Amino acid sequence: MVRILGIDPGLRFTGWGVIEARDNRLSHVADGVIATDAAMSVPLRLRHLHDALLELGRGFAPDEAAIEETYVNRNGAATLKLGYARGVGLLVPVLLDIPVAEYGAKAVKRSVVGTGAATKEQVEMMVRRLLPSAIAKRSDAADALAVAICHAHHRASAAQIARATRMA
Amino acid sequence: MVRILGIDPGLRFTGWGVIEARDNRLSHVADGVIATDAAMSVPLRLRHLHDALLELGRGFAPDEAAIEETYVNRNGAATLKLGYARGVGLLVPVLLDIPVAEYGAKAVKRSVVGTGAATKEQVEMMVRRLLPSAIAKRSDAADALAVAICHAHHRASAAQIARATRMA
Repeated sequence: MVRILGIDPGLRFTGWGVIEARDNRLSHVADGVIATDAAMSVPLRLRHLHDALLELGRGFAPDEAAIEETYVNRNGAATLKLGYARGVGLLVPVLLDIPVAEYGAKAVKRSVVGTGAATKEQVEMMVRRLLPSAIAKRSDAADALAVAICHAHHRASAAQIARATRMA
Repeated sequence: MVRILGIDPGLRFTGWGVIEARDNRLSHVADGVIATDAAMSVPLRLRHLHDALLELGRGFAPDEAAIEETYVNRNGAATLKLGYARGVGLLVPVLLDIPVAEYGAKAVKRSVVGTGAATKEQVEMMVRRLLPSAIAKRSDAADALAVAICHAHHRASAAQIARATRMA
């Protein structure tokens, strides 16, 4: 059994979700959103995000973490801000010695829905089907659960390949 | 007297410099560069940067920190990476309860050289003139000292304005 923390980072809203994977069976543990106050300074907002992720990491004690590669848009200033949040999202798991894997949006969609061209709505629907007890009030939380599911699938395949290689 | 930590963030090289400002007199304390290994994973590189900045913050115990607003270039992926490093640079001072101020590249140049159109070489030359004992082997360290000088000037003006306002 492995416990996975999925993170969908953003300066305003960072979605998070914790799942457990036993062989190919997945179960939902918890999910939610970390919101930072847009009226606060950026350093204080980053501290809030850092503290909240640290608390989640300590509280749920995941074995591994997975983070979605944020969409790189055309607006440099917005991309930079996304980078701040994503940097903190990448940093906090390693501070807790939790390995963190990165997945592109297409890999997440392919893993959850079966096609890299899936819509946001299709991803959310499949997350709810795979994890019936998911709360995921905001789509950020569903996206975080989706990247956790993607990681569960990838690590299962990697384990199968390793097993097959040892047998060969 | 106030001790200021200047930071010029980057994922590969982060310049840093510590100065002291007493009224309008500036003096150099230390400077250097934090380099991360490009062969390591991004999360581990961010952890290295985080740990090194935390150590500097604890070791030199600055009263205030100043960070240069990174140039937002056209390449989204590069901007995102810059965002990671800058996010960590903004985060670590607040983790140590050190207030951190941000200055655009033009403000730094205007403050150090007298014109926002100054070249990198002019900035470096003026940094060495203002702080004769600066080491600044790499330009990143000189840039970090420049943003610390910029902050010293701005906070001195702000103090003068506050004093004048109280007298009025």
